[in-house]
Amino acid sequence: MSRVYNFSPGPSILPESVLKKAASELLEYGSSGQSVMEMSHRSPEYDEIIVSCEKLLRETMQIPDNYKVLFMQGGATMQFAMVPLNLLSGSGKADYIVSGMFSKNAAKEAARLGDISVIASSEAEGFSRIPDLDSAAFNPNADYVHICQNNTIYGTRYPKLPETGDVPLVADLSSCILSEPVDVRKYGLIYAGAQKNMAPAGLCVVIVREDLIGKAREGTPVMLDYKTYADNQSMYNTPPCYTIYMMGLVLEWIRDEIGGLAVMKARNEKKAGLLYRCLDESKLFKPIAQKEHRSMMNVTFVTGDAALDKAFCQQAKEAGLCNLKGHRSVGGMRASIYNAMPEAGVEKLVAFMKEFEARHHG
Amino acid sequence: MSRVYNFSPGPSILPESVLKKAASELLEYGSSGQSVMEMSHRSPEYDEIIVSCEKLLRETMQIPDNYKVLFMQGGATMQFAMVPLNLLSGSGKADYIVSGMFSKNAAKEAARLGDISVIASSEAEGFSRIPDLDSAAFNPNADYVHICQNNTIYGTRYPKLPETGDVPLVADLSSCILSEPVDVRKYGLIYAGAQKNMAPAGLCVVIVREDLIGKAREGTPVMLDYKTYADNQSMYNTPPCYTIYMMGLVLEWIRDEIGGLAVMKARNEKKAGLLYRCLDESKLFKPIAQKEHRSMMNVTFVTGDAALDKAFCQQAKEAGLCNLKGHRSVGGMRASIYNAMPEAGVEKLVAFMKEFEARHHG
Repeated sequence: MSRVYNFSPGPSILPESVLKKAASELLEYGSSGQSVMEMSHRSPEYDEIIVSCEKLLRETMQIPDNYKVLFMQGGATMQFAMVPLNLLSGSGKADYIVSGMFSKNAAKEAARLGDISVIASSEAEGFSRIPDLDSAAFNPNADYVHICQNNTIYGTRYPKLPETGDVPLVADLSSCILSEPVDVRKYGLIYAGAQKNMAPAGLCVVIVREDLIGKAREGTPVMLDYKTYADNQSMYNTPPCYTIYMMGLVLEWIRDEIGGLAVMKARNEKKAGLLYRCLDESKLFKPIAQKEHRSMMNVTFVTGDAALDKAFCQQAKEAGLCNLKGHRSVGGMRASIYNAMPEAGVEKLVAFMKEFEARHHG
Repeated sequence: MSRVYNFSPGPSILPESVLKKAASELLEYGSSGQSVMEMSHRSPEYDEIIVSCEKLLRETMQIPDNYKVLFMQGGATMQFAMVPLNLLSGSGKADYIVSGMFSKNAAKEAARLGDISVIASSEAEGFSRIPDLDSAAFNPNADYVHICQNNTIYGTRYPKLPETGDVPLVADLSSCILSEPVDVRKYGLIYAGAQKNMAPAGLCVVIVREDLIGKAREGTPVMLDYKTYADNQSMYNTPPCYTIYMMGLVLEWIRDEIGGLAVMKARNEKKAGLLYRCLDESKLFKPIAQKEHRSMMNVTFVTGDAALDKAFCQQAKEAGLCNLKGHRSVGGMRASIYNAMPEAGVEKLVAFMKEFEARHHG
């Protein structure tokens, strides 16, 4: 058996060279005589790994000095509660923009903890686009505005960030982080589950402006307070050590093999361009996301015939193009083409789609 | 370089055969053409991994059907908050027995959420023993009694469990789970961070009696409610997939190479016996834990001379016996001899101690 092209929405494909490096040093890391999996998180060997991972992330994303990088667990879903617990410290109000299931769940969880307004939603349009924003709907006294920047399920993303003025913008970047350069200064807080563009599952990265730390409401569990992580270099208790090591390898790959986020963006634009061009020219496949809001990471489409969609996914799998089934709430197909998906994988998918179309739409 | 004997208190040594198997299938698991690190948690391939891990844990520990096994993140420290958030649903009171830093921190975190009584503590004795228990001190109306069964830092463990009658016993088994058979029915809830006897860091296992689930207080974050995990097979959101896979490999090792927990216990008793005999016969090294409360997993000792302790750890490291430095709050030495530490490692340590003693106590 050889490796397939894995279009899974997450956990998802990792760079093959990263996996090979991990396999080669799995039993003995450097001269330590131990696996990274076995290392005390308080050891000098491990300290070098976590410090260098943070340093590389800071360099790669050009994170300003007044932002902390925190390594956490519990996925982005844990942040749905941590954000309001930590940030609802002024007016106790926050604005949420709902562009999909995850931002809807984030708003729902926050509403159990504070006074939450959904100021825009594209649910009525099946989340096929980012909702239109009315500047009058924003509460100037909100403690923050929350968005999900790339919507994995529907294949949409914000073409530009909402203008929130002095109100901190909080953004879930789980499925687009590291796919292109972003200006971190435009955000109060960024969070992202690692299992799409950063590492295997089990790690969530939070990038937060320092002045937003230390205001958690009374009774917030120690492990849900950003200050606990900020004050202890993310090692108040044992962090997910090996996953952080894997993230370090992925960041080295971005630096050394790709050449940074500007190159990564060009690569991703080219891959997405190939797929969207194929969809736009197709008489069989129809894109789901509206053109101006198309995601660069998740490309969703249908034939309009559920049985044909199913046949497509099945035959694609047999051709080594795996995990193309769309989310159950949307149906159809979804090709997640994260950073680690090589251009050759997208080319093979496009060729397969054309061949499938020729067979079924003759 | 070859692999050292790693006496780290956690994250800690893993069975070499487990690491070799993980390395061999890191790029391609079975016929999937993917790494387990890349698999969708909703795929049939991964479902088999998580289901079989739970099944193996149930068989290994003989977990009754009316207990749920939950896979979580955030370590045992997250449980310090989750236990009171979920279980303080009756009288709102709970009894804590403080036998070390972790149980003290657990009581402190719970006291922010409910009416907590510390009914016994051995802090005045430097936690060198499990505290004496006065049956009159237990509150018969408590929602639960909390203990830490094995105290990693001091090298102590409960010689027998406290009698709590109808009050559920909640126990932190992080550093002794899977080291010997336990009668799960004696507990209302068991929790354990994986990074000592089960897997790499980033996974916490909770074994909880079903009637204790579903009573979380209002406003408890979704991710801190046991019901969320129980209702969704621990996959409400993406679990730490690869760490669960590693735990499955460790459980297969216990079943296939060791022969179950009764054999494991005998192995561990033999290893601990070698070390304690050495300490009892030594004129240089003194054990820290009181005899009747000695841990089978963590063996603590001092020379009484801090400079000599330091020299011991340094020279042991040069001899391939690593991470023997005691916790900063106790000083001296600590040999953590978890399941994966081979008898040969303990024998080598004992030989080194005798040789060191001959040189320094002539």
